[in-house]
Amino acid sequence: MKAVRFTNWKTFPEIKDVPRPVPGPGEVLLKIAGAGACHSDVAVFDSFDESMPVAGQLGPEYTLGHENSGWIEEIGEGVTGLNVGDAYLAYGPIGCGHCAACSRGQDTYCANAATQPYLAVGLGRDGGMAEYMTVPARNLVPLGDADPVLAAPLSDAGLTPYHAIKLALPKLAGGGKSALVIGLGGLGQIAVQILTAITGAKVIATDMKPEAMAEAERNGAITVPGGPDQVERIRELTGGEGVTAVFDFVGITPTISTAQQVVARQGRITVVGVAGGPVNWDFYSNPYEAELTNTYWGTIEELYEVVALYREGKISPSVKTYSIDDALQAYHDLHDGKLSGRAVVAPHGA
Amino acid sequence: MKAVRFTNWKTFPEIKDVPRPVPGPGEVLLKIAGAGACHSDVAVFDSFDESMPVAGQLGPEYTLGHENSGWIEEIGEGVTGLNVGDAYLAYGPIGCGHCAACSRGQDTYCANAATQPYLAVGLGRDGGMAEYMTVPARNLVPLGDADPVLAAPLSDAGLTPYHAIKLALPKLAGGGKSALVIGLGGLGQIAVQILTAITGAKVIATDMKPEAMAEAERNGAITVPGGPDQVERIRELTGGEGVTAVFDFVGITPTISTAQQVVARQGRITVVGVAGGPVNWDFYSNPYEAELTNTYWGTIEELYEVVALYREGKISPSVKTYSIDDALQAYHDLHDGKLSGRAVVAPHGA
Amino acid sequence: MKAVRFTNWKTFPEIKDVPRPVPGPGEVLLKIAGAGACHSDVAVFDSFDESMPVAGQLGPEYTLGHENSGWIEEIGEGVTGLNVGDAYLAYGPIGCGHCAACSRGQDTYCANAATQPYLAVGLGRDGGMAEYMTVPARNLVPLGDADPVLAAPLSDAGLTPYHAIKLALPKLAGGGKSALVIGLGGLGQIAVQILTAITGAKVIATDMKPEAMAEAERNGAITVPGGPDQVERIRELTGGEGVTAVFDFVGITPTISTAQQVVARQGRITVVGVAGGPVNWDFYSNPYEAELTNTYWGTIEELYEVVALYREGKISPSVKTYSIDDALQAYHDLHDGKLSGRAVVAPHGA
Amino acid sequence: MKAVRFTNWKTFPEIKDVPRPVPGPGEVLLKIAGAGACHSDVAVFDSFDESMPVAGQLGPEYTLGHENSGWIEEIGEGVTGLNVGDAYLAYGPIGCGHCAACSRGQDTYCANAATQPYLAVGLGRDGGMAEYMTVPARNLVPLGDADPVLAAPLSDAGLTPYHAIKLALPKLAGGGKSALVIGLGGLGQIAVQILTAITGAKVIATDMKPEAMAEAERNGAITVPGGPDQVERIRELTGGEGVTAVFDFVGITPTISTAQQVVARQGRITVVGVAGGPVNWDFYSNPYEAELTNTYWGTIEELYEVVALYREGKISPSVKTYSIDDALQAYHDLHDGKLSGRAVVAPHGA
Repeated sequence: MKAVRFTNWKTFPEIKDVPRPVPGPGEVLLKIAGAGACHSDVAVFDSFDESMPVAGQLGPEYTLGHENSGWIEEIGEGVTGLNVGDAYLAYGPIGCGHCAACSRGQDTYCANAATQPYLAVGLGRDGGMAEYMTVPARNLVPLGDADPVLAAPLSDAGLTPYHAIKLALPKLAGGGKSALVIGLGGLGQIAVQILTAITGAKVIATDMKPEAMAEAERNGAITVPGGPDQVERIRELTGGEGVTAVFDFVGITPTISTAQQVVARQGRITVVGVAGGPVNWDFYSNPYEAELTNTYWGTIEELYEVVALYREGKISPSVKTYSIDDALQAYHDLHDGKLSGRAVVAPHGA
Repeated sequence: MKAVRFTNWKTFPEIKDVPRPVPGPGEVLLKIAGAGACHSDVAVFDSFDESMPVAGQLGPEYTLGHENSGWIEEIGEGVTGLNVGDAYLAYGPIGCGHCAACSRGQDTYCANAATQPYLAVGLGRDGGMAEYMTVPARNLVPLGDADPVLAAPLSDAGLTPYHAIKLALPKLAGGGKSALVIGLGGLGQIAVQILTAITGAKVIATDMKPEAMAEAERNGAITVPGGPDQVERIRELTGGEGVTAVFDFVGITPTISTAQQVVARQGRITVVGVAGGPVNWDFYSNPYEAELTNTYWGTIEELYEVVALYREGKISPSVKTYSIDDALQAYHDLHDGKLSGRAVVAPHGA
Repeated sequence: MKAVRFTNWKTFPEIKDVPRPVPGPGEVLLKIAGAGACHSDVAVFDSFDESMPVAGQLGPEYTLGHENSGWIEEIGEGVTGLNVGDAYLAYGPIGCGHCAACSRGQDTYCANAATQPYLAVGLGRDGGMAEYMTVPARNLVPLGDADPVLAAPLSDAGLTPYHAIKLALPKLAGGGKSALVIGLGGLGQIAVQILTAITGAKVIATDMKPEAMAEAERNGAITVPGGPDQVERIRELTGGEGVTAVFDFVGITPTISTAQQVVARQGRITVVGVAGGPVNWDFYSNPYEAELTNTYWGTIEELYEVVALYREGKISPSVKTYSIDDALQAYHDLHDGKLSGRAVVAPHGA
Repeated sequence: MKAVRFTNWKTFPEIKDVPRPVPGPGEVLLKIAGAGACHSDVAVFDSFDESMPVAGQLGPEYTLGHENSGWIEEIGEGVTGLNVGDAYLAYGPIGCGHCAACSRGQDTYCANAATQPYLAVGLGRDGGMAEYMTVPARNLVPLGDADPVLAAPLSDAGLTPYHAIKLALPKLAGGGKSALVIGLGGLGQIAVQILTAITGAKVIATDMKPEAMAEAERNGAITVPGGPDQVERIRELTGGEGVTAVFDFVGITPTISTAQQVVARQGRITVVGVAGGPVNWDFYSNPYEAELTNTYWGTIEELYEVVALYREGKISPSVKTYSIDDALQAYHDLHDGKLSGRAVVAPHGA
């Protein structure tokens, strides 16, 4: 079968013909409906090398694609209660399976991650940019009759903002709350949708691109452009009190600084974007009890909750599909910033 | 000035001319914009007598009206930061002011309630069914430029469901949750609006009256009529898992029993309606970890949150207004079940 | 190897010689250190029959013992990061492994329980009342150098009260709170220890047996005997406000009624004991916002937390050990009420 | 009566004879039992001037003392349910009384603070370093028969750590958690007591002074001295996972940096100390989901909870008492670092 292979550090992936995998005990074989292309893939094949802390887990060679959906083609030994032909979304991370974090379905924080052979499907282990992929049965979330191709990005571009928002829900509970989304790429747009769907907060959004802001408005946000009066305008929208929960999907020094200037007393800033921009923090410039934190992907149970919102039509990722033969083009388009939505490779048709 | 007076147990109120009150220290004089007529008023003048446990607090004679809004007419000694002419919603309950419950703005659970002279404005102390009313400054929530007449019911018919829902929010957090509203009178309709506004739950509603269900549908609910297959249909809407949070605004034995049959494992039943219907509870028929509880009114801070939803247009009580001269008609219409929305007396015009 | 077998409904178990099991993929073989005897075992072999709802899962023949500890003897295919010879406590429940509940380590609420072949080790699947047992790797919690024999009861008699208390922690957070433990058998005594260890609540305990109350006092509780003034004395200990969180480990009608009479406004009653006693509930006799609920076992992650308390010496089950040859005597003693602590079969010595 | 007066910026206070105050409506006159001397007083009279942001609220002349206890001597108009002669602890902050924050008893975050004449008793308004003080009735928490002199520091040195800990309780809930207290002055020692009393966390403490660490050990902490291996030793005590909740009572750059190095994934750092030391924060050096925040004083209801712990003997501030004539010596000793416990002026005897 055809697969998009990460073959070496600092090397653009290539399409290769590889054997169709066989599910082991506790696993299923998934016929891929959709596999999203993510900026972190680009980081892996473009920027990383064997000196990275997790190089042992992320090193080549393997098939890319860590946000995947598909239909069960074959069921491995010991798996019951799943049906061949049904559509599922796949949770990407795979930990040791038996530590406290894995036991609660949060493989991202696996206590034994450092000694595992990989981090996730598509990140060290063969992923979904191929016609078929094996995955542990416990990583599957049923999609029912919802479109599995469009669903694919939900397992990362949906789950990551959902997890960040879920942890901030105590700050957003009830009336009179506000949320700010900084950065309206794939994750930021879904963040706007999730915030609109599951909270009563006034959702404010900001980005450099007018068309991204227009889409955020269609998703229910009030938008504020960048510029010298950005902070003031955001604060005005909150009646001067500041924003209850800020989600920064960029994560560079200026965006985090903006977050610090607009956050309300007792509010929360979650840096989601991995740009790594350092910021200063001190007692007197931090509004009392405002929290500064970061976040990483999410849990299996949260993916069930994301899928529930998708199946009810409350969230809907914007997607551009590619055939498996055009899969490399997806990474080119992503790299060149040509995409407004998420690039999804659909090996068996959109 | 004219006032609707509760003059004696088992006696229909009458309109009397009484002196305009003077605000004491820490109080303001409110020129009444709206005063809602509530079923509990009817209970007080129709059903109660001096043998009731709280007869000492609720006994005659006083002006009715415990859900009120208005404009500040005069400011008492020691009150700062409030403006004559501005519109406010008034929190009804008034406790001792210095116990733990009062300190957190939950006068409903005042530790000294039994030795207080009254429970609330309009419930033992002169209320808002009059041209003017005095009230402690701390009971006021600013309305800004939102309509104060339509706002009046929010201080009870809005706050009571809001408080019940707020306490159930942990059960409704995120995707894949569901809520059931039983009984679509004034409070139930606002409950549907609040649930739609501040949660991502699938909102289901049920009532005996088709027109009440039609209004709930306009407010965002899926409706299920009564009848032999009511329980089954509600469960189907939740994918068979049962309802995450049930709010019963009736509270008779059959409605609570319905709640018990549809609630999900780890769900919650809140009985809001005060009909007092007894039910059986046992370990094996209660889905694991499902909670059964009741509720009573709310806190001052929650009233701020209700007002925020109202000012943003997310909730909007259905109201029929009456002049002060027609105020008794409001109670007649309420008593006779002629109202679809809330009856509000507007002494200074709608 | 020797094993205590449940051979038929309404039939006392017998010790048989059975083959030593072989761990499947994802499993380990545990050399049993301790296996607790539980009242629910007695219910299974004494009271149940094929007409029970879960008879399909619980039917004979299999080895009893659902609260087990031991040392890894052999590691199955695909299991990494566990060490032969190390001591572990085993979480009993085993669900489908891939539903939302199983994904969060709460196999007790497996969505596919009805179609599973068993509920737990020792409850449908071969358990730990034997020299060896197989169990999925994810069910293991490392014990470090803590005594594994004494630890065995923690996986049920420790986890069940811990789960109930954990869900009630919001009611017990901070100063000025109180807890009542009704019924001081194995679970109730550990409940007293857990409450003392992880909350600042005043812990009150009650039982019919003076020696059980004496032990509860040694564990940090204030005790109140039964009798006509029991309710009044308990309320006095709380300054008249009532008990913040009640845990009823009996669950008969009189004990739940006592709980209803002593619970505080905004408090919580958790019925843990499975006697199934029905009670009446109504709006006016339920203190405002007091919750009535039940509970069932717990999660894998919570078992980690129980083990942490055990390893730090904060909880310590009272245990009487039996050899595998005397295992049936353990059930006799349990059935005859001769035990003050938990009966633990230690096939390889205490 | 004698009173310790702050007479001018940059000026050491002096003892003056001033008229005994008269309680206004809603107030009581408190005969002072104890008034604690706090570092923030020293900041006010030593370091501040009219250029400070809150100079309008904090400017001279007034009586110092913001953590006070006493017996009611006289009751003002409109106050019911309080008894002359009874002992109370006084919550210091006084806001507008009618904003959302004040309504929930959190005057510290009064929305109208900037236009109020003072921040608290002893901070802009006459405080408790005198024979008598007036205070609003709602600021009083009953002490029952507990010693009111020793209680005085609880209203700041007790409430401030309690509030910080209460907000961190979700991180400390259950078994297997850990807490680190950095800085073992008056507040830090009470923090150790509170953590030991209301959580099951392993409490670790660090300070430069061996005698402070010895006291922390008596209060239940494990101590780790400063030095090059401090971080490593703290992490070892947590099994390598890091500290669940860190409380930094110093707040200089090095102590916050230590906190950042030891905090666990999903943990929390609360900076309590107001030294204002700036630190760097970035996505990759912050353990996933660890929160960085600050804190300020507490709420009236929390003061009730602090008093409950004190009345049950679970916390007990270390105190050195001074007569009113020696009150200035208390500030000298505080300034000179001669105190191990809290300096309390007891105008009517210890």
